[in-house]
Amino acid sequence: MAPQEQADRLALDPRDTAGFLAVARANHAADVAAALDQLDAPLACRLLHVLPAIERADLYGHLSPASQVGIASCIDRTELAELFLHMSHDDRADLFNRLSAGQRESFLPALAQVEREDLRRLAAYKEGTVGATMTSDYATVLPGLTARDAVEHLRHVAPDTETIYQAYVIDDERRIVGTVSLRDLIVAAPLQRVEAFMKRDVITVAADSPREEAARLVARYDLIALPVVDAADRLVGIVTYDDAMDVAETEATEDFHRVGAMAGLAASIRDATVASLYRKRIFWLVILVFGNIFSGAGIAYFEDTISAYVALVFFLPLLIDSGGNAGSQSATLMVRALATGDVVMKDWARMLARELGVATLLGATMALAVSLLGLWRGGPEIAVVVVLTMQLVVMIGSMIGMSLPFLLSRFRLDPATASAPLITSIADATGVVLYFAIATAVLGLPSPQG
Amino acid sequence: MAPQEQADRLALDPRDTAGFLAVARANHAADVAAALDQLDAPLACRLLHVLPAIERADLYGHLSPASQVGIASCIDRTELAELFLHMSHDDRADLFNRLSAGQRESFLPALAQVEREDLRRLAAYKEGTVGATMTSDYATVLPGLTARDAVEHLRHVAPDTETIYQAYVIDDERRIVGTVSLRDLIVAAPLQRVEAFMKRDVITVAADSPREEAARLVARYDLIALPVVDAADRLVGIVTYDDAMDVAETEATEDFHRVGAMAGLAASIRDATVASLYRKRIFWLVILVFGNIFSGAGIAYFEDTISAYVALVFFLPLLIDSGGNAGSQSATLMVRALATGDVVMKDWARMLARELGVATLLGATMALAVSLLGLWRGGPEIAVVVVLTMQLVVMIGSMIGMSLPFLLSRFRLDPATASAPLITSIADATGVVLYFAIATAVLGLPSPQG
Repeated sequence: MAPQEQADRLALDPRDTAGFLAVARANHAADVAAALDQLDAPLACRLLHVLPAIERADLYGHLSPASQVGIASCIDRTELAELFLHMSHDDRADLFNRLSAGQRESFLPALAQVEREDLRRLAAYKEGTVGATMTSDYATVLPGLTARDAVEHLRHVAPDTETIYQAYVIDDERRIVGTVSLRDLIVAAPLQRVEAFMKRDVITVAADSPREEAARLVARYDLIALPVVDAADRLVGIVTYDDAMDVAETEATEDFHRVGAMAGLAASIRDATVASLYRKRIFWLVILVFGNIFSGAGIAYFEDTISAYVALVFFLPLLIDSGGNAGSQSATLMVRALATGDVVMKDWARMLARELGVATLLGATMALAVSLLGLWRGGPEIAVVVVLTMQLVVMIGSMIGMSLPFLLSRFRLDPATASAPLITSIADATGVVLYFAIATAVLGLPSPQG
Repeated sequence: MAPQEQADRLALDPRDTAGFLAVARANHAADVAAALDQLDAPLACRLLHVLPAIERADLYGHLSPASQVGIASCIDRTELAELFLHMSHDDRADLFNRLSAGQRESFLPALAQVEREDLRRLAAYKEGTVGATMTSDYATVLPGLTARDAVEHLRHVAPDTETIYQAYVIDDERRIVGTVSLRDLIVAAPLQRVEAFMKRDVITVAADSPREEAARLVARYDLIALPVVDAADRLVGIVTYDDAMDVAETEATEDFHRVGAMAGLAASIRDATVASLYRKRIFWLVILVFGNIFSGAGIAYFEDTISAYVALVFFLPLLIDSGGNAGSQSATLMVRALATGDVVMKDWARMLARELGVATLLGATMALAVSLLGLWRGGPEIAVVVVLTMQLVVMIGSMIGMSLPFLLSRFRLDPATASAPLITSIADATGVVLYFAIATAVLGLPSPQG
């Protein structure tokens, strides 16, 4: 992110219910919702009541999940059902999953049969899948329709569908046979049939795929919406580009946090509680403490070497950190490249060969940088130890950092778990042993007795 | 990213020119282009020539920037001009900026006057700005047009505009006065005038803003396209949602790399050369070597303490790394939150107060974890030193990690430069001094004489 000023957030006066109507109408719903998110639920409820039903529902749809749940508990059930009716189907299903069983039961009867079934179906998909992200408000057309009739059809369904810019052509079994964009329909001769100019080469995603698969397809093929199919290849929903953008941002944030050695919690950091942040961070910190015990044990093993040459300790942080730094660079590159699909499993061998070349050069440069320091602080013998160790730790650290994300990916684990601190701990322990082993050999000390 | 299988890439046989036509038609252009990117330019050129001009231009537009430049040098200038004519205006301007002066001069005369001017204008914006990302293929309508005439107008401009789903309503000075979506136009009564139902509350971005500002606005307001205005508020271009997605991904990748202590090079890692990777990584590695000299100097200063209690060295990696790990967690959280706009400058005080709470708890937990280790390896006095140091380094590391991104942002520097390894180096040096100072005090050793 380049540096820049952030726009100031909208501030609301929770007591000024009368003024709120004007504020809500003068600003974009996303901005008003962000301001409402800062208020306690009862205050936000009071303000929301000022608005007419449709505007209230629109605003409610833009609120954060936490605010939506809070507000759901302070309004009556017919109002809640009304808010639900105006939300997009996917947002509605997400909210449904967050409500308590009591809240669900209280407003479900207020929904029509067909809405209830749609809601239950969407809410049934596992979190993190395409099914849990998709919406069922899409437009379909039949292949035999003329372009003019298809536009007429889209005009009628427009109020109830999330996008009419892409319509899906389906057969009698709801299997998708093509797509037409509204642009194609408008440009086509009015009496031409849809099947004559529809795109037959349709990119789809399975409802049980991970949601980032949908985000990647939308980005790769520049789609406005991606059709979702079930196991029998029937159309069951769409993922729109804006939901795909949200998924991509959430996934990138999760990967960021994992590489920073934290649990992949994707909620807003701004509003996270002390307890949730503590839980998110403590696991890896404690794991890494135990990881560092290996470095400590390595040092203890070489206690005699250290006693004989205390000057060696001067170079300890520098050498072991350099291996860790080079390794965490490699890991970061690979984690991101695997996440964006830039690199795939079968590229491993080629990447490893190239990494060896890069790491050799990096190690040589850094060995050169510390050689003078070694001469100055410890004399020629120490300088030899330091130079040799630097070259080796940078190379070994880089190899570990590059390979771990691939290995995790190979065993179907999340490569982002190859966090920089984890790589650093592994490289540290390796570096300690390497350093003192080389020192023992070069300085002609007796081998340590563990 | 959750684990999953990646689709195998399409493989092309560069000698099978005859078969290429069939492959190109059976697959999506994005996939064929990805396969062509793997070939040398002369081979790719030969295959491209098999296709009819329009298909060739479409495929060319999907190639990686490096392939486009390579191919530009092995085809003649009329063909290059033709490829240019079929590209979207923004992609064309990007390519123009990558060509050599000789290449530019050779094909410019083959373009029409108006195309030349448009190209020069778009290519003049500084890289990384909205202007360099926007396209000039947008549709405008006049406020007095009826809905039916507006649709008719969009139908005519459709082949030359990147999106007709959003049209911009402009006055005589090209100032933007509203927007209408194709959906609104289709749903409106045919004889209703555009000004009667256009959206007047238009979200725009300035052409000289950083491009991630455009990506953020598109994501926040779920826009299909964001209008771009000049200093006099005149409409000069649009940023489409798919370009905004690409920008968001590129920016996230750059931030990833910076947090991993690398230059923010955003090219494909898969195809990067050893030399470019070396350049990208060596700067920070060498900087961090010198950063670690402070830790080394700290250790040298306390050489007598170490000689007296060699057991202290056992806990050194563990203690200083814990401070660095906690700090890099905080920094990662803040860098990402600042990049997505989740947190802004004025949240600093509140974040700092909360971080103090979180870090105190984290420090206490980790101090508890190492207390037994301290007792076992070093006895009660060493245990006291280790526990005190752990509590303090975790707290100080977290505070540094949280504050540095804010400070950088405050001075209009990129917060992502607060890389995990940088924070680790700073926390390490602090940790060394703290550890041995506490040890000297608790163990009743004489103060060291530097």
